[in-house]
Amino acid sequence: MKRNIENVAVIGAGSWGTALAMVLADNGHHVRLWGHKAEQINEINDLHTNEKYLPDIKLPHNITGYSSLEEALTGIDTIVLAIPTKAIRDVLNQIADLRTEPLTIVHVSKGIEPDSLLRISEMIEQEMPAELLHSVVVLSGPSHAEEVSLRHPTTVAVSSKDMMTAERIQDLFINQNFRVYTNADIVGVEIGGALKNIIALAAGISDGLGYGDNAKAALITRGLAEISRLGVKMGASPLTFSGLAGIGDLIVTCTSVHSRNWRAGNMLGKGQNLQEVLDNMGMVVEGVRTTKAAHQLAEKYNVQMPITSVLYDVLFNNVNAKDGVDLLMARSKTNEMEDIANFFED
Amino acid sequence: MKRNIENVAVIGAGSWGTALAMVLADNGHHVRLWGHKAEQINEINDLHTNEKYLPDIKLPHNITGYSSLEEALTGIDTIVLAIPTKAIRDVLNQIADLRTEPLTIVHVSKGIEPDSLLRISEMIEQEMPAELLHSVVVLSGPSHAEEVSLRHPTTVAVSSKDMMTAERIQDLFINQNFRVYTNADIVGVEIGGALKNIIALAAGISDGLGYGDNAKAALITRGLAEISRLGVKMGASPLTFSGLAGIGDLIVTCTSVHSRNWRAGNMLGKGQNLQEVLDNMGMVVEGVRTTKAAHQLAEKYNVQMPITSVLYDVLFNNVNAKDGVDLLMARSKTNEMEDIANFFED
Repeated sequence: MKRNIENVAVIGAGSWGTALAMVLADNGHHVRLWGHKAEQINEINDLHTNEKYLPDIKLPHNITGYSSLEEALTGIDTIVLAIPTKAIRDVLNQIADLRTEPLTIVHVSKGIEPDSLLRISEMIEQEMPAELLHSVVVLSGPSHAEEVSLRHPTTVAVSSKDMMTAERIQDLFINQNFRVYTNADIVGVEIGGALKNIIALAAGISDGLGYGDNAKAALITRGLAEISRLGVKMGASPLTFSGLAGIGDLIVTCTSVHSRNWRAGNMLGKGQNLQEVLDNMGMVVEGVRTTKAAHQLAEKYNVQMPITSVLYDVLFNNVNAKDGVDLLMARSKTNEMEDIANFFED
Repeated sequence: MKRNIENVAVIGAGSWGTALAMVLADNGHHVRLWGHKAEQINEINDLHTNEKYLPDIKLPHNITGYSSLEEALTGIDTIVLAIPTKAIRDVLNQIADLRTEPLTIVHVSKGIEPDSLLRISEMIEQEMPAELLHSVVVLSGPSHAEEVSLRHPTTVAVSSKDMMTAERIQDLFINQNFRVYTNADIVGVEIGGALKNIIALAAGISDGLGYGDNAKAALITRGLAEISRLGVKMGASPLTFSGLAGIGDLIVTCTSVHSRNWRAGNMLGKGQNLQEVLDNMGMVVEGVRTTKAAHQLAEKYNVQMPITSVLYDVLFNNVNAKDGVDLLMARSKTNEMEDIANFFED
């Protein structure tokens, strides 16, 4: 495949932003990697490493670090937004102030905003003035940054209301190791990516309690059903939840030691409280905020989400983690099809 | 719940048969555990252990070992059939010769018979004279025997053409740790259980090659799609594949160290050939036979099953495992919904 070489800015120099910058650099693009810590940016430019986020990984030389957002954005028409959901509105405000030309924004964060209950593409559309926004594309799927940075085989989905642009983004990223699929269901792709973090927290709790793989598989299976039920009510296609951004991402997040939501759940299962866990992690645990948002969404759309509901009580209402999981396992309902089937109803 | 105490014979004293005997014994039933090795049966009766299959586990005293099939079956009207698929016809023949009264047979094996392409419940119906067969029930789901024997929380589905009897079997097994759900789709429950072993072999190969969790999640996701495509053509409900006997069992088999199909794939990925792997395992690897059967089913029903097809070539046509998996990861198709969607078509 002949490839157009582009200038792309990746906003956010955490593990995922850096790994995606590496994919783009491997494809020959000129990649600007922006972060707000000068010391980290110096490390990227001088040593070609980002040790805190991707230990022992050598970055390609066509990644240049920027600590000035203005410089990073000059002459750029495509950015990859790889920052925690909590920071998105603030960073978009800064970006809007610096721009006169429209941008295509590829977002790779996974979450739902509590209270507004907006998906991330909706937050971007709300925050960026229309004349400065060409398109919003989401990239999501089973993709631990650590493995992507090692160039292990990885598959993701891209989606957008503007599928022409989604296909351009597919071309930008795709290579031998990083396979990119299109999927026109942006609601499903965003909901699948966001809500899997809730189930990963629950799976981590189950593992922290020593309950084993049988229990975890049951939680993941029911988790997929409740994510799908909510997603379909919000307008997603049920098929997306059987795909990479649904079950694919759910599996990798619930079963991999790389997953920080799973690790946080694991600490909860071992008896720490939420504040202790967050203090120990030192990284953002998106699933905590997402649990709050999903709990609100379940009420708004009148959808039964037993795992989300139990996790909400464990995180925010001091319910004991073991009691919560035991309650989930001991439900009296005994026909599984009733449970699964109603995500195909409206 | 008040429980009727029954006499039940479990035919097959491997790890799964023994673990299920423990569940029944925990529920107060009088359990006969049949195996053909006298030494093993003596161990069960004298020491209340079955070390080869469930190391370090103490069996309840209301499990009695039998090496005589005739004695094990006397006065019994329900058996649990827990033997390798290859031995089923032979054992059923022996059972039929010993019986004059009808039996309910709960089968817990996972496979499809090559050449005849029958599911196990169909094999049982074919092999047992109608007047000796009350009903056939399948019990399947994410349930490693080792964890069940440790009384870790586990969920399974039971299915039958005769759902009244399936509900009786649900009552027989259900307890605090072992949750049993009914599902009326016997085709889906049997196909899901059988075909997941193929995907577990492929996942093991991917892990053996060192490809990581992202690659494995992609294989599991696509594996579910191809199992579902075939299952629906065979008359299953697509919903079953989103449930315990579908994605639930698939996850546990592909991600747990307990899974012997995964372990066999892992050795293949590390460069051993099929004969070496089978020699090293010393236990039945159902996925190998099932791959042959699924390959035949894909042709019969004209269904695309890329993972099955590649695995068939690796197992039986000397195709290199790495070349096979690389081929799967590098497919040129780029819209994932095309892939998933066609399991809802006829």
